[in-house]
Amino acid sequence: MPPKALQDNLDVDYVIKYKIPSDDKEKASRQFQVLIRTLAEIHLETEVRAADDSSLFVFVKASDDQAFADVVYRSRIRDWLHGVCQIQPVKETVETLTQAPLSEAERLRIIYDLMTCQDADGGANITPKHGDWKNVEAIFSLHNHTRNKDWLAEFSKKTFLTPEDLDHIRNAVGEKIAYYYAFLQSYFQFLMFPAAFGASVWVLLGNFSPVYMIGIGMWSVVFVEYWKRQEQELAVRWSVKNVGSIEFSRREFRPEKIHKDPLTGEEMGHFPIQKRLQRQLLQIPLAIISAIALGVVICTCFAIEIFISEVYSGPLKSVLVFAPTIILTVCVPTVSNFLTGYAEQLTFYENYETKGAHDKAMISKVFVINFITSYLAIFLTSFVYVPFASILVPYLDIFSLTVQPFAENEKQLQSPPPSQFNINPQRLPNQMFYFAVTAQIISFATETVVPILTRKGGHKIEAMRSGAAKRSGGSHPSISANDQPDEKEFLARVREEASLPEYDVTSDLREMCIQFGYLALFSVVWPLTPVSYFINNWVELRGDMFKLTIESRRPIPERADSIGPWLNSLEFLAWLGSITSAALVYMFRDGGFGPDGRPSKIKFGLLMLSVFLSEHTFLIFRQVVRHAISKLDSGNMRKERSERFMVRRKFLEDAGLGDAVKPLTSPTDSPLKTINSGVSAHANTTITRQSLEEDARKHSLHDSTDSSRFWNKQRGWQESEQVGLRLIDMMENQNDKKRK
Amino acid sequence: MPPKALQDNLDVDYVIKYKIPSDDKEKASRQFQVLIRTLAEIHLETEVRAADDSSLFVFVKASDDQAFADVVYRSRIRDWLHGVCQIQPVKETVETLTQAPLSEAERLRIIYDLMTCQDADGGANITPKHGDWKNVEAIFSLHNHTRNKDWLAEFSKKTFLTPEDLDHIRNAVGEKIAYYYAFLQSYFQFLMFPAAFGASVWVLLGNFSPVYMIGIGMWSVVFVEYWKRQEQELAVRWSVKNVGSIEFSRREFRPEKIHKDPLTGEEMGHFPIQKRLQRQLLQIPLAIISAIALGVVICTCFAIEIFISEVYSGPLKSVLVFAPTIILTVCVPTVSNFLTGYAEQLTFYENYETKGAHDKAMISKVFVINFITSYLAIFLTSFVYVPFASILVPYLDIFSLTVQPFAENEKQLQSPPPSQFNINPQRLPNQMFYFAVTAQIISFATETVVPILTRKGGHKIEAMRSGAAKRSGGSHPSISANDQPDEKEFLARVREEASLPEYDVTSDLREMCIQFGYLALFSVVWPLTPVSYFINNWVELRGDMFKLTIESRRPIPERADSIGPWLNSLEFLAWLGSITSAALVYMFRDGGFGPDGRPSKIKFGLLMLSVFLSEHTFLIFRQVVRHAISKLDSGNMRKERSERFMVRRKFLEDAGLGDAVKPLTSPTDSPLKTINSGVSAHANTTITRQSLEEDARKHSLHDSTDSSRFWNKQRGWQESEQVGLRLIDMMENQNDKKRK
Repeated sequence: MPPKALQDNLDVDYVIKYKIPSDDKEKASRQFQVLIRTLAEIHLETEVRAADDSSLFVFVKASDDQAFADVVYRSRIRDWLHGVCQIQPVKETVETLTQAPLSEAERLRIIYDLMTCQDADGGANITPKHGDWKNVEAIFSLHNHTRNKDWLAEFSKKTFLTPEDLDHIRNAVGEKIAYYYAFLQSYFQFLMFPAAFGASVWVLLGNFSPVYMIGIGMWSVVFVEYWKRQEQELAVRWSVKNVGSIEFSRREFRPEKIHKDPLTGEEMGHFPIQKRLQRQLLQIPLAIISAIALGVVICTCFAIEIFISEVYSGPLKSVLVFAPTIILTVCVPTVSNFLTGYAEQLTFYENYETKGAHDKAMISKVFVINFITSYLAIFLTSFVYVPFASILVPYLDIFSLTVQPFAENEKQLQSPPPSQFNINPQRLPNQMFYFAVTAQIISFATETVVPILTRKGGHKIEAMRSGAAKRSGGSHPSISANDQPDEKEFLARVREEASLPEYDVTSDLREMCIQFGYLALFSVVWPLTPVSYFINNWVELRGDMFKLTIESRRPIPERADSIGPWLNSLEFLAWLGSITSAALVYMFRDGGFGPDGRPSKIKFGLLMLSVFLSEHTFLIFRQVVRHAISKLDSGNMRKERSERFMVRRKFLEDAGLGDAVKPLTSPTDSPLKTINSGVSAHANTTITRQSLEEDARKHSLHDSTDSSRFWNKQRGWQESEQVGLRLIDMMENQNDKKRK
Repeated sequence: MPPKALQDNLDVDYVIKYKIPSDDKEKASRQFQVLIRTLAEIHLETEVRAADDSSLFVFVKASDDQAFADVVYRSRIRDWLHGVCQIQPVKETVETLTQAPLSEAERLRIIYDLMTCQDADGGANITPKHGDWKNVEAIFSLHNHTRNKDWLAEFSKKTFLTPEDLDHIRNAVGEKIAYYYAFLQSYFQFLMFPAAFGASVWVLLGNFSPVYMIGIGMWSVVFVEYWKRQEQELAVRWSVKNVGSIEFSRREFRPEKIHKDPLTGEEMGHFPIQKRLQRQLLQIPLAIISAIALGVVICTCFAIEIFISEVYSGPLKSVLVFAPTIILTVCVPTVSNFLTGYAEQLTFYENYETKGAHDKAMISKVFVINFITSYLAIFLTSFVYVPFASILVPYLDIFSLTVQPFAENEKQLQSPPPSQFNINPQRLPNQMFYFAVTAQIISFATETVVPILTRKGGHKIEAMRSGAAKRSGGSHPSISANDQPDEKEFLARVREEASLPEYDVTSDLREMCIQFGYLALFSVVWPLTPVSYFINNWVELRGDMFKLTIESRRPIPERADSIGPWLNSLEFLAWLGSITSAALVYMFRDGGFGPDGRPSKIKFGLLMLSVFLSEHTFLIFRQVVRHAISKLDSGNMRKERSERFMVRRKFLEDAGLGDAVKPLTSPTDSPLKTINSGVSAHANTTITRQSLEEDARKHSLHDSTDSSRFWNKQRGWQESEQVGLRLIDMMENQNDKKRK
């Protein structure tokens, strides 16, 4: 049973950590006053406490139910206008707007938007760490620790999360994060098929099996298309359809000129699209520089490693062979962080109007960098080392410099003649094993275990420090000493949570996307890969849950109707997989030994043909799957259609379907019946003598035109009918005459 | 100056041709009565005249302005509900609904829908040639001949149609046909570039130039992407955006079971999707059968022709060589009509709910058949005859049977040994010349000139026949003899128009699509192809205009927001072009002679590599163009955005943006000003003493919880501010102490 303070958030909606820098105290305290008044103006209640030596906590609560209900109502209207919901919201009672159907995440999101959105979007424009509000260090809400513990306990017991579990996640932390868990869950479930299939293939057919290639290719298509559909289903289930179209303007957007919309009179910042397209062209040099920078690092380490392991024969070989890996582990993150920094600058320079567009542009750049760092090494092994090693290895002599200090004689540094050279056939499977198993374990450790240890270590150091300070005289009393006793525990917990890092769902998504890439691109090398990923992802989901609930601040709920640009990455990787898998299978088809470092063993035409066939089969299959999935119906879709139908029917009924055209409802029956029952046609009720007379009057007004003469030949439908019947009679007579 | 009757339609909206079959006269005349009453019930005025020996004309006019205004209003409401227009229509005066902004096409479309739509869609359910209404032979409106003549005269004088010309077409015959003319116009304009470029390449570099290949590939991408954008622009200009989503249920749809929607209570016909997907799978055998049937015909004729022209050396060679072409001209349309019939049956069998889905499925099948008939012959020449002729020709001996009767000795039927065999290097260019020039002329003739001649001939025969009948005793008086003198001319014209065929825009679109295919796939054979098409399409547009206005009944206006599935065909052809062009350029790169019938001259690996590179460059380029075009802005798009913005602003203002959160408008300024001007913070106007007291009262109600104790420490924002400022002071003191 956790202590009481962990259970109860005392109705706090948000905690604002406000920094008072010692060098600019006056301005900071004036801005603090502005903060408190601004919050009061948007009807939020506040309490202030000390956070640490130089910051305050402002606790915020939406206590005015009426004011909050208005905000919720406005937010619902905006949703409806953007097509997020079908039915126009009505101003309900305060209770229905602020209580039951309003989830925790929605409440928190609306309050956060109220505090931080721009004036135009109806917010108070508080911008943490930015502009006037640079002293607002953080805005965060408090974890619900009881529920978090329940989740961790429950999820560690079951294999699959239920849709309801995902709903709970969504209700607590918002749709954006819930989409990640839904994706991870779908991916994990789908992995069952290739895991079972891969294991059987591995037992029966071994590595590089064309059967496995076809299986994994089809699987990746079906999975990606299924997930696309699943996204839509979830969007309906969570009522976030079209949420992506609600655009929040970016504060950092620098318009080139302001112009006034002639229609709305709104002043709008404008940035010429041609200029942005030009700036976007800089992505090409960025991609090239990334490829070169990372390529040089990776290729060099790769070459050195090959040189040491396959050419060098001097002492310390078994130790030196790890040197390149160590260089790689240090250099690649450094270089890629550097490049990510540049990518970020470029994205800022591209100057997007909306947050969505900015994030999308950034993610696509991050994907390029990650693609290179993740797959280049194994690409090199597959498509350079294996086919061309015997030609290239002699040129590696230049790397002899790196081990010269250790060599005892020149001979140890000389490569064997190409004819005698043999490649290491285990290199590719080993590398794949690394990415399938070892790398996953390392990543899990750095993501989940290391932060715990660091934090525990940090606490210990702090405890030691404060102990030392006390012993040395106590001139540095802890700020928490002034806390009132009934709040002590609670404030300690808030301080603890404030010190945690923010949760970044993008990096988790990226990790899964890269994993999918290994599966689609290279798993044909080792068909047990999906088995390993299947096991890993069970742990991954629980680990991420742990990270989300224990190791991070509670995230601000955001909405989303998709996992975003990562979806395109998945599609791209599946496509590329159809090319690489076919090439790998073609090259290694003879028992998995491959071209043995000699390109002459590869029939280039056949290689290209197999790639061509595989790729186009993939594309046709994808088209078929897309078509089939787009036609499938589901309860959610039906519900949405019915709702839309009802809205339309209501409007059409209001628009007078009921009166003006009423007699239409059964046009074929009623006249027939009157005719058949022998009632005179003139007794028809809808056309009265009066209306006929009015017709006559109307016509007499402009009696002179050709048109009116034509239309007045037969007055009313009765006369038309008579004339028609007479004409039919005449036909009869004529035909009779003819027959005679 | 045309006679008066040609100018004036006497306000007739529609003419219904009603047949009285002599064998079932009684039922027909009863149903005729139903027709007249049904029309009266939907407030349409009628006049009846004799059409010919066995049919009547029912002239229809929407004369009741009030009733018609209601129908227009309802139609506008439906449009708004489907997102076709942004602003909710208001019930305006009768004049604004029935006059100025209502184009002729819109008026006719609404009246037609009123007569023919199902009850559920608010129509009178008159179904020409179908069910109870099988005697309704045709419903058509009358041409405006004066305007038609003006158009023909005007368009034949100018090179390019203006956007206003397209607007006029749209206002007269509806958006679906206008989209065809807009497409043809855009395509014609775009053809200028490859025409100029192709001509220069032809002069400077000759056939099979890689430069031309790159040019035409880029052009086809840009054109298709530009047209996609253009479609959207036109949809906004013509207010038909999302019109495609208004679905009209198909009358022929056979639901498997009826189920009641639990939400709306509506009874809905349901057909299981799995079943339809299974039926759609029959498309695969259909495509295979089409390929085989047409393939056998075309390959056989192709082989016979090669045999005669290149093996046979007996008498009558110059005559016999045309025999296969004649067989082809007879057989291919027969076979393809046969297949189209099957495709139609299959589409019916697939049992679509909506007309849109049905048409789309049909068009995709028609495209497959047309693809084979149009391109197979030139595919065979390029990729079978040119590389493999020397191997295959000896096997053509089996076709010696076809010319055996003409041969004088066995030697004339023997093929030369492969080593001596030479292919005809002019075969491919000749074939391309045929498709680029000859076939276009033939098609223009059959489409435009032949119908005129047939009609003139028909008139002559009829005149002769009736002359003969008069002379032989006159027992067969023409029905027109009974016409009243002032209507004689008008009725003659109506009879004339009733005898014309219907205008089918799909076949015109198909023709252009196939032409684009020749350009994308094979024009690298002869770079003057675009020049020929450029000239042809100037004539084509005028010819189609002639066909539309003179040689066909006036079409019923339909709406559309796209050229439909043909767009996919264009995309597919452009993609395929990147493959075929690269292969052709690779094979014929050495001066246009190609592999000379000997496959050994082709390096298969390099061929595949050039195809691979060309295709992927194409795909990347397409992605870039798509991205760039999607970002381009335009007046139409801006206008639409502004409209949407205004609608949203209005709603949000109504939803109380104005009162509840008013003080928000300048949150950063106002409090700061009060602080800076030294006014006491307690004088803030939004928070009064009264509200504070109310807060206190509220809190005292549940004073016992942790939460309320926490939140009551500081009552109101003023106390929070005081506490905060005191805490800031303390920090100062501490820091001062530390410094000491």
